[in-house]
Amino acid sequence: MSKKIFNLRRIDSGNSFSLPDIPTAPPAEPKKSHLESVKREISELSERLNKLQLRLHASNERGVLLVLQGMDTSGKDGAIRHVFSHVSPLGVRAEPFGAPSADERRHDYLWRVHAKVPRRGEFVVFNRSHYEDVLVTRVRGWINKTTCKQRYQHIQAFERMLSDEGIAIIKCYLHISKQEQKQRLQARMDDPDKHWKLQASDFEDRRLWKDFIKAYEDAIIATSTDYAPWYVIPADSKTYRDYFLMTLLVETLEGLKIKPPAASFDLKSARLD
Amino acid sequence: MSKKIFNLRRIDSGNSFSLPDIPTAPPAEPKKSHLESVKREISELSERLNKLQLRLHASNERGVLLVLQGMDTSGKDGAIRHVFSHVSPLGVRAEPFGAPSADERRHDYLWRVHAKVPRRGEFVVFNRSHYEDVLVTRVRGWINKTTCKQRYQHIQAFERMLSDEGIAIIKCYLHISKQEQKQRLQARMDDPDKHWKLQASDFEDRRLWKDFIKAYEDAIIATSTDYAPWYVIPADSKTYRDYFLMTLLVETLEGLKIKPPAASFDLKSARLD
Repeated sequence: MSKKIFNLRRIDSGNSFSLPDIPTAPPAEPKKSHLESVKREISELSERLNKLQLRLHASNERGVLLVLQGMDTSGKDGAIRHVFSHVSPLGVRAEPFGAPSADERRHDYLWRVHAKVPRRGEFVVFNRSHYEDVLVTRVRGWINKTTCKQRYQHIQAFERMLSDEGIAIIKCYLHISKQEQKQRLQARMDDPDKHWKLQASDFEDRRLWKDFIKAYEDAIIATSTDYAPWYVIPADSKTYRDYFLMTLLVETLEGLKIKPPAASFDLKSARLD
Repeated sequence: MSKKIFNLRRIDSGNSFSLPDIPTAPPAEPKKSHLESVKREISELSERLNKLQLRLHASNERGVLLVLQGMDTSGKDGAIRHVFSHVSPLGVRAEPFGAPSADERRHDYLWRVHAKVPRRGEFVVFNRSHYEDVLVTRVRGWINKTTCKQRYQHIQAFERMLSDEGIAIIKCYLHISKQEQKQRLQARMDDPDKHWKLQASDFEDRRLWKDFIKAYEDAIIATSTDYAPWYVIPADSKTYRDYFLMTLLVETLEGLKIKPPAASFDLKSARLD
């Protein structure tokens, strides 16, 4: 299955685009037989991802940063759980970025983010990220347009530096429809076990849906680069969301062409008595 | 005494310049009477610096980063000790950057530096800095010319971000002559109490003096900006070095025009029974 069939959209820098024009669902209503074959592929991708991650970890040459962004309930936590379920925590680290602490707020906004970037050999997933500093901050009016544009530049330069220093960067927007969010929020409201996941701001942000979409479009277009591209992942279907993400990760890791490092001594001298 | 008289040189970006053409000593051989008056001024500057730092600390609006670079024995430690001798450690932090640790080396080179930048309200002095990553690394051939130029760009962008986020940056090259270094190294060799300060690399680096000068010139010219200017401080005389530095710091802090913050409640309601 090619990326094109499933509308896994890589956003090219500079060109404007419209998020509402990109489908949140797989192109055709998934048939049950089709869904089954996707699940089989996911299990195969999972094995490949595991092997590629091991090689990344062993070689110590490159690092990988996956940035996950998306509206509330878009499935960031779920994607992290499922995509990395068969990968060793030894070389994968998930870093959530909530509202900044008092100390974090007294620093530049990239300070807490830079502290958590991958070192070479590591695979790091950001659950939210420095992009919140040009998204919620902008929608809520905590920064003005000039500051927001300055930050696009800072972020580009920051990611360029990371890339020059050996860190591959992939950024994904998990794309759900407003209708899908309604169902997911309702499901959380109906299940006392999920009440802890709900916050008053979820409902406030939902009322600002259009403003958030606009802020995402602007941020994505301003910061999608060759060295740190943005992808829009249709995420109404959790299975397809995971499938898209894993395809993307496997392709990215394979693209790094990391060779398994040689033994650190002459294997011919090794004797197994 | 104006800055001009004492050849406190601010380097303007883009224009090439020659370090050997800038005097390492004060313009005239300091007369004893003159030296005394400079010492009096230092003590006055010290009081002003203390007051300005307190205001910075209280206002929580801006931060200040002072980067100190220079050849071995150029007086970075001494300058930090003397310049901040009357300032409270509560709002001043000195951060030395030695050879990177194994963990630091696995990260991008700005990672350990960004972790230590000032938060708003803080005054931080870097004893060596991210500039080592375009100086010793270049002279020793650990990075090539292309990487070095890339890093000038990263550093500019990094400092621009810090500046946009409220951090004032001043960078100083403590300028000593090769002859002065010889005397200082000899003094350390002659005094067993100072042997710990000596390293084999001091003598290797001394043989590469011209290469270091060239690397400094290139780095300074490439990264001197309006928001993070470089100054060349004549540093053969320790007294004048401190005097130049303190003048610069006081002027920079005064330039921030930080107002003392108002009380957090209505003082009229306060009763002293």
